[in-house]
Amino acid sequence: MAFIVKKFGGSSVANADRIRRVAGIIADDYSEGHSIVVVLSAPGDMTDDLIERARELNDRPSRREMDMLLATGEQQSVALMAMALEKIGLPVVSLTGIQAGVVTSTDYGNARIEKINHDRISSELDRKRIVLVAGFQGYNKYDDITTIGRGGSDTTAVALAAVLRADKCQIYTDVDGVYTADPRKVEGARKLDEITYDEMLELASLGAQVLHNRSVQMGKRYGVEIEVLTSFERKPGTIVKEVTNVEDMKISGVAKDTNVARIALLGLHDEPGTAFRVFRTLSNEHIVVDIILQSFGRDGTQDISFTVARDDADIAVNALNAIQSSLGFDTLDLDDNIAKVSIVGAGMMSASGIATTMFEALYDAKVNIGMIATSEIKISVLVAREDADRAVQAIHRKFFD
Amino acid sequence: MAFIVKKFGGSSVANADRIRRVAGIIADDYSEGHSIVVVLSAPGDMTDDLIERARELNDRPSRREMDMLLATGEQQSVALMAMALEKIGLPVVSLTGIQAGVVTSTDYGNARIEKINHDRISSELDRKRIVLVAGFQGYNKYDDITTIGRGGSDTTAVALAAVLRADKCQIYTDVDGVYTADPRKVEGARKLDEITYDEMLELASLGAQVLHNRSVQMGKRYGVEIEVLTSFERKPGTIVKEVTNVEDMKISGVAKDTNVARIALLGLHDEPGTAFRVFRTLSNEHIVVDIILQSFGRDGTQDISFTVARDDADIAVNALNAIQSSLGFDTLDLDDNIAKVSIVGAGMMSASGIATTMFEALYDAKVNIGMIATSEIKISVLVAREDADRAVQAIHRKFFD
Repeated sequence: MAFIVKKFGGSSVANADRIRRVAGIIADDYSEGHSIVVVLSAPGDMTDDLIERARELNDRPSRREMDMLLATGEQQSVALMAMALEKIGLPVVSLTGIQAGVVTSTDYGNARIEKINHDRISSELDRKRIVLVAGFQGYNKYDDITTIGRGGSDTTAVALAAVLRADKCQIYTDVDGVYTADPRKVEGARKLDEITYDEMLELASLGAQVLHNRSVQMGKRYGVEIEVLTSFERKPGTIVKEVTNVEDMKISGVAKDTNVARIALLGLHDEPGTAFRVFRTLSNEHIVVDIILQSFGRDGTQDISFTVARDDADIAVNALNAIQSSLGFDTLDLDDNIAKVSIVGAGMMSASGIATTMFEALYDAKVNIGMIATSEIKISVLVAREDADRAVQAIHRKFFD
Repeated sequence: MAFIVKKFGGSSVANADRIRRVAGIIADDYSEGHSIVVVLSAPGDMTDDLIERARELNDRPSRREMDMLLATGEQQSVALMAMALEKIGLPVVSLTGIQAGVVTSTDYGNARIEKINHDRISSELDRKRIVLVAGFQGYNKYDDITTIGRGGSDTTAVALAAVLRADKCQIYTDVDGVYTADPRKVEGARKLDEITYDEMLELASLGAQVLHNRSVQMGKRYGVEIEVLTSFERKPGTIVKEVTNVEDMKISGVAKDTNVARIALLGLHDEPGTAFRVFRTLSNEHIVVDIILQSFGRDGTQDISFTVARDDADIAVNALNAIQSSLGFDTLDLDDNIAKVSIVGAGMMSASGIATTMFEALYDAKVNIGMIATSEIKISVLVAREDADRAVQAIHRKFFD
């Protein structure tokens, strides 16, 4: 008998048939004697529909009122799921974010969970009820409804698991776990039984978006074991935890990110503060810079190259061109026909030769490497966009075949 | 400068255009310096849609979960209306029933408002904000969401007006006021400027359903002046209050009710307790009896006739037939091809000859009268259904031409 927090996304509650299927999963676990808290997202496209209805009335509605509007989605999900569970004779109660005691910061639209007053949930569990909690929402010190950002139901689930000291937090998704590479594109990609929080964070930031980073970070901080699994089949998924048992697995996955552009500033004044001014300009525009390469100064000038999200490239270029005279660069070069290919693995910290093996795979596949960046558990390279899939396949074969 | 509570129904918030029109009405009043609280119902058919979605999952969902589901409707209404008001630059805040402090009994689905903790509303009004309150909903002592019965937004509005000591409660409807008779059917029907609570209650119970009885009763108890008016035109409606100024108006309206059936029990034992047993039987089935006529006993038997809602007639007949031997009646006669025609007027208490005038009108129109019932402010007669419209027209002409 365990205490399990489960989270189901919007597609799992999009219609009556899917609600019934999820109810069946919950019923199975409940009948085995487990204590169960279930976090639900808004049904299917409801959030987008509501945003559309809001925009008809106001192109810039206040975030407070938007939260008031959007929070109805999860409330409907938990009420409907409760009815489906009542239908099969199970004791159940649905709770809004307020009723579940989810206290957040005051930042409407993007609030942080500050604490969870779990008296109500605990007393309902004591009464052997299945507790359904509306995800993605809470309330702030003004007793206003807040939402914790899109996709935030994952975070609600992990936070509840942490506060309630649940044995496990199961996140049900459209995929059945975390793979060594995108299984739709890479031959031989296989599902991982386990992965560390850090590896999961790196994979998510590389576009293998299975769990939201905030929920993984929270899981890491509070030691919540997270399982990523599918609601379409009854089989184990991938468990995200601090230390995995797969000692001999040097890397956990190969990922590709095409939402990337490289900007190079050539012929900058080689003087203190130049780099600072470049990156402060970008940070003022809320642009996150990823890989940075700064050349040694030569002839009184230097070059700086860096990558940004491709969506941000135009803003970055405009912001930098606006202060060209003050920065004093000769040329700004933008290349958005690139991709970032990365390998991720907690095991690489204690292993040597990982980078060499990766570069060998790329050499064999005749893929040119642009910039390189390394961290303790990740090695990323920039390649031409057209080479990216070939690069991933080659690297994956090298490590996993 | 007044303090006004306004209530708009579901059709007023059914789409973006209608929301904008209502926002315009609110804005006009706010710009005149009034303090404004607005109560809204769920948009258009949303409540019916949600009930349908619930039924797909469970033909008998718990009322608690149904309330949780349905309460999202008004929440969406207030959030969307807030955005429309923000768009035209007005300070506004939307509140759920919980945030508005509407405390109810624990009867999910049909709760009574017990009190309103109006601190939040008052402080928002102090900040010169327009306050939008989700109608039809509150919360009970378990901190669960409750609904106060369908159409209950009228009651929310009047209750708020009472507690906040508003100058007026304006209920916006599809009609522009209360008429002396149904204007679609009766030639010469005209709008009343004022009407008493008691008259309004009688008219509502006769099928002229403009305001819900609960809201009128609450208005009467707390002396809230209610105005019934339309959101389609900017003009005064009908004011419902304790004493009206129209002294010379003997009656306020003529109404027809076709949801009525007459049951006659002939040849009952003429002994103590017979009538009691008849009506206890009906009350056990939750059937409300309206007009009752009991004959004098003769030859040891008596007859009892009464009317019930036509929807209840079959249940009543079955219940009575089941105890025929114990009641000992010879014949049960059901007539559901009838209608009840009534005149209502607080003025008739102090005037004589009202009944005579009514009967004269019916005689002139050659309408046969079945049963007659009178109260202090109402005279009702049963007529054949086919004669009902003619009867209403004849009476209306007699009193109002």
